[in-house]
Amino acid sequence: MKIIVDCHGGDFCPREAVVGALVALDSSKSLSVILAGRKDEIEAVLAERKYDLSRVEILDASEIITNDDSPSLAIRRKKDSSTVKGLRLLKDGGADGMVSSANTGALLIGGTLILGLGAGVTRAAMCPVMPTLTDTHTILVDGGANVDCKVEQLREFAVMGTAYMRELHGIKSPKTGLLNNGAESEKGNAQTKAAHALLSETDGINFIGNVEAKDFLTGVCDVLVTDGFVGNAAMKASEGMGSVLFSLIKNGIMAGGLRAKLGYLLLKPVLRDIKHKMSGDAVGGAVFLGLNKVLVKAHGASKATAFSNAIIKAADMAERDVPAKIAQGLAL
Amino acid sequence: MKIIVDCHGGDFCPREAVVGALVALDSSKSLSVILAGRKDEIEAVLAERKYDLSRVEILDASEIITNDDSPSLAIRRKKDSSTVKGLRLLKDGGADGMVSSANTGALLIGGTLILGLGAGVTRAAMCPVMPTLTDTHTILVDGGANVDCKVEQLREFAVMGTAYMRELHGIKSPKTGLLNNGAESEKGNAQTKAAHALLSETDGINFIGNVEAKDFLTGVCDVLVTDGFVGNAAMKASEGMGSVLFSLIKNGIMAGGLRAKLGYLLLKPVLRDIKHKMSGDAVGGAVFLGLNKVLVKAHGASKATAFSNAIIKAADMAERDVPAKIAQGLAL
Repeated sequence: MKIIVDCHGGDFCPREAVVGALVALDSSKSLSVILAGRKDEIEAVLAERKYDLSRVEILDASEIITNDDSPSLAIRRKKDSSTVKGLRLLKDGGADGMVSSANTGALLIGGTLILGLGAGVTRAAMCPVMPTLTDTHTILVDGGANVDCKVEQLREFAVMGTAYMRELHGIKSPKTGLLNNGAESEKGNAQTKAAHALLSETDGINFIGNVEAKDFLTGVCDVLVTDGFVGNAAMKASEGMGSVLFSLIKNGIMAGGLRAKLGYLLLKPVLRDIKHKMSGDAVGGAVFLGLNKVLVKAHGASKATAFSNAIIKAADMAERDVPAKIAQGLAL
Repeated sequence: MKIIVDCHGGDFCPREAVVGALVALDSSKSLSVILAGRKDEIEAVLAERKYDLSRVEILDASEIITNDDSPSLAIRRKKDSSTVKGLRLLKDGGADGMVSSANTGALLIGGTLILGLGAGVTRAAMCPVMPTLTDTHTILVDGGANVDCKVEQLREFAVMGTAYMRELHGIKSPKTGLLNNGAESEKGNAQTKAAHALLSETDGINFIGNVEAKDFLTGVCDVLVTDGFVGNAAMKASEGMGSVLFSLIKNGIMAGGLRAKLGYLLLKPVLRDIKHKMSGDAVGGAVFLGLNKVLVKAHGASKATAFSNAIIKAADMAERDVPAKIAQGLAL
């Protein structure tokens, strides 16, 4: 598998993207990477390291899409950006998948315009793969790409997420829940009530009914279907609570004197593991589903490990041909 | 101030409701309570305690509205329930406010049908008053009562929340944010884009623009306006993350051997304070805004302290005549 790595756009780019790519190469002999970005900057990082020259190429690109760029303008105008050049190469068959930590909106628009949507797909979704209390993962479809969804889109989201969890996590019949304001089938707003009825009669998915946001991270389902606006609100609120709790623990330790500081030192490995588990680093970011090709989003703050995980995930998705499996699911 | 306390419907009722009422009496000489519920059960709890007989009345009611009841059926049929009898007495001027830990839906419907909506109000809202990282509070309007809001309702929510924070928290010009998927003014779905425009030109509120869900609990605003479906999702997801993190800490301590257990013992006061701060107990639950009278919701798991706080809050709301202030705000 050959994966394009967009080496710009993240907070610690290009260094961490390049190092992450080299780390990923260690995971599989059949993996190779194309590093997209400013050749001189990429080469400067490569020069410090030993790696298999035959498995690393550079796709020279001078421009960078930033988070301040308007997504649609950036895709149209920054033709020589690592993101646009990478997507074009992917579209033309020059690679099997792509990883980028750039502007999510630009990736969504670029992915849709350049790679195209899969057969039967109305809109692509941006899907965080979230860690859970039970050590499983739940894919959130949609995590924020589509903020005004038609009910039919929610059906597509269910099929997309099912294909992903089946292929990438080996779950034969992924449990699919609908994010709603109550567990009972009659609960919901106009959209989720209609979606509940539609998902109940959708072939090829294992619909387990409504899931409340309090079970967002408890692993009760493998696929969580939602309008992107609500999905974004739930995910961000959940992350916000995580940050607030860790800040409060820190403040409490600072104010708590010697006893609290000693307690913290002893409990540090436990707290660090939890922070690591619930952060995006272990997971490797979000995936775009519904596109013709494999596109994985590493979060903006990705370090080498996160990039490496995202690259391995992209290779797995390409290997299992997730885009084709989604099209098959939607054709049922 | 005379506050009706619905002594049934919560997990630890009637005991904790009755004890909470007696605790609240200690806070102010001018407070008196009417305990609504099964007289014999209430008297059994009262018999164990000393209290000022002249400040405690009982409103005998034989029926109980449970969480399994359909809200609208319960309000229509359980005429002799503590909830319905309490609301009727409040409506008839027999008290200044009411606290209940019963079925939220039943309280919303009962409040709307029996107490009536305030002048200029389209729908009542259920508003959690949330603790924040910065030791301030943010009122969420709406936390789940209205799952398909018209944009005009969001304007009413902003005015309601502003009146509450001004009167109860003494903030002259409460910062009002719109829950959205990005901070920039052009962000949002169809509803929030329209709401942003409307709130920008609403008199009598201090609109600070969009607030992302990651700032749900960071205290960036005093009033957070949202459709109830989204508000419910964000709040529940945030609570869910809190539960998950505390569970993970517990699991980590169990698996972490002597070192982790000792660390936990030392850090226990810090963790307990945080859990207490971020739980509903310290806050006293949610308030219903938009009704003609004061109605406060204590959460279902309320113990005596939570009931006491809710009763004091109801008395404060009545003292400051929040329903009238909301009507004044909406008339601007």
